[in-house]
Amino acid sequence: MEKLHIIKIGGQVLNHEAVLHSFLKDLQQVPEKKILIHGGGKLATRLADQLGQPQQMVEGRRITDADTLKIVTMVYAGLINKQLVAQLQALGIDALGLSGADMNCIQAKKRIVGAIDYGFAGDLGHDSVHADKLHALLHIGCTPVICSITHDGKGQLLNTNADTLAAAIAIAMNKRYEVQLNFCFEKKGVLRNSEDDSTLIHSLTEAEYHTLREEKVIHQGMIPKLDNAFSALNKGVHKVVIGHSMDIGPILLNTNNYGTRLGN
Amino acid sequence: MEKLHIIKIGGQVLNHEAVLHSFLKDLQQVPEKKILIHGGGKLATRLADQLGQPQQMVEGRRITDADTLKIVTMVYAGLINKQLVAQLQALGIDALGLSGADMNCIQAKKRIVGAIDYGFAGDLGHDSVHADKLHALLHIGCTPVICSITHDGKGQLLNTNADTLAAAIAIAMNKRYEVQLNFCFEKKGVLRNSEDDSTLIHSLTEAEYHTLREEKVIHQGMIPKLDNAFSALNKGVHKVVIGHSMDIGPILLNTNNYGTRLGN
Repeated sequence: MEKLHIIKIGGQVLNHEAVLHSFLKDLQQVPEKKILIHGGGKLATRLADQLGQPQQMVEGRRITDADTLKIVTMVYAGLINKQLVAQLQALGIDALGLSGADMNCIQAKKRIVGAIDYGFAGDLGHDSVHADKLHALLHIGCTPVICSITHDGKGQLLNTNADTLAAAIAIAMNKRYEVQLNFCFEKKGVLRNSEDDSTLIHSLTEAEYHTLREEKVIHQGMIPKLDNAFSALNKGVHKVVIGHSMDIGPILLNTNNYGTRLGN
Repeated sequence: MEKLHIIKIGGQVLNHEAVLHSFLKDLQQVPEKKILIHGGGKLATRLADQLGQPQQMVEGRRITDADTLKIVTMVYAGLINKQLVAQLQALGIDALGLSGADMNCIQAKKRIVGAIDYGFAGDLGHDSVHADKLHALLHIGCTPVICSITHDGKGQLLNTNADTLAAAIAIAMNKRYEVQLNFCFEKKGVLRNSEDDSTLIHSLTEAEYHTLREEKVIHQGMIPKLDNAFSALNKGVHKVVIGHSMDIGPILLNTNNYGTRLGN
């Protein structure tokens, strides 16, 4: 099967010009097909501050009221997506920016109101990602750049977690491709001590993950990312790597000693 | 040749829910292939006001400094584009939102600084529209929804006039399609008296246009739109109609007595 890289771009790439430049130059060297996924939470929070619209977060998830939905749509689907696409085009990568509404490539459901009303937050189901649409775009030579805005198919845009979206796309695409899912963020990978890069865990099985989690070695912020990652592996994704945005080149080229490789 | 509608959507459609609803329902009835073009100046000006960034306009053209470019990118490519796409999807139209950077479908040049520095304004040349890219998307069943943000191919986004963009796309597509270019705005068409809908001019040749312009019957705001329209006709576009957004159904279906038909 042909190889496909799904790459979740972290906030650091989007907020630092030098990191972005390094990331894009690395990407240019990778011959395989690619899909990029991004959010842009920090920039959205900054715009909300400028507009005097305080943001409410619950366990790292944004409460998306109607005004906040407009803000994240402007920042993710507009500013960040188009800046990324223009810079990829300048490097000769035929990027195409997408929200889930575009070509109906990802259809979500508004999160059911429980103890907390997350507003216009979109949850993904097993049939949310329309892999045939993404395949058609890859087939005509495009590199999709997908922001974490989806829709419900009835005209409503929804704000969806970008890590979850990346995992769902990886799972949906693995019928046609040998998928490597890459989460890029501001750490070297999964660390035993989150402040010390030299404590990088080079490979991690699900059993080891559960042990480290019980021992509280793996800290809170990493848990949803790792849950998404192991869920993808268990649903047939070939390989998952978590690493630093500056190391995306060696990670995509599968050079050892970069990032944390997940697998059983 | 197969028919293709290029439809420039005016501000009124984007700012009034009832007009938008009527417009989209009409669009749903039109079986031919379609490309939609939009800007969103009024919403951009509103956001700029909220952010305390006063906007400078010269003869109806926005001076696009770096901060203004971010605003128009967020509003046109983000908010308006994705809301339109989501609503079209809800009506069963397989919309795909695009800026000129996406798939490099429209590459512009930053306007040369003359007496006035328009900042990041993008001008179109004869080879700016990459018709093959748009054709590939139409071919796989998509309806492109193109906002008036382009790029220079070197990583820089640019703000481009939406009327000019619509005309340039119409001209570029006419090698493969019988193109009808439709400008929708807040008037019934070209009026002898801009305050009186009953003075609608049903058809207008270029010679008649020049006469009416000399007689000052055609007012300032219509001149760039009509210049774009006749330029498109002279370059092989099959038909150009200017009319009200609420009349888009009959205009696209070529019902008489709606809009102003331009031709020689």
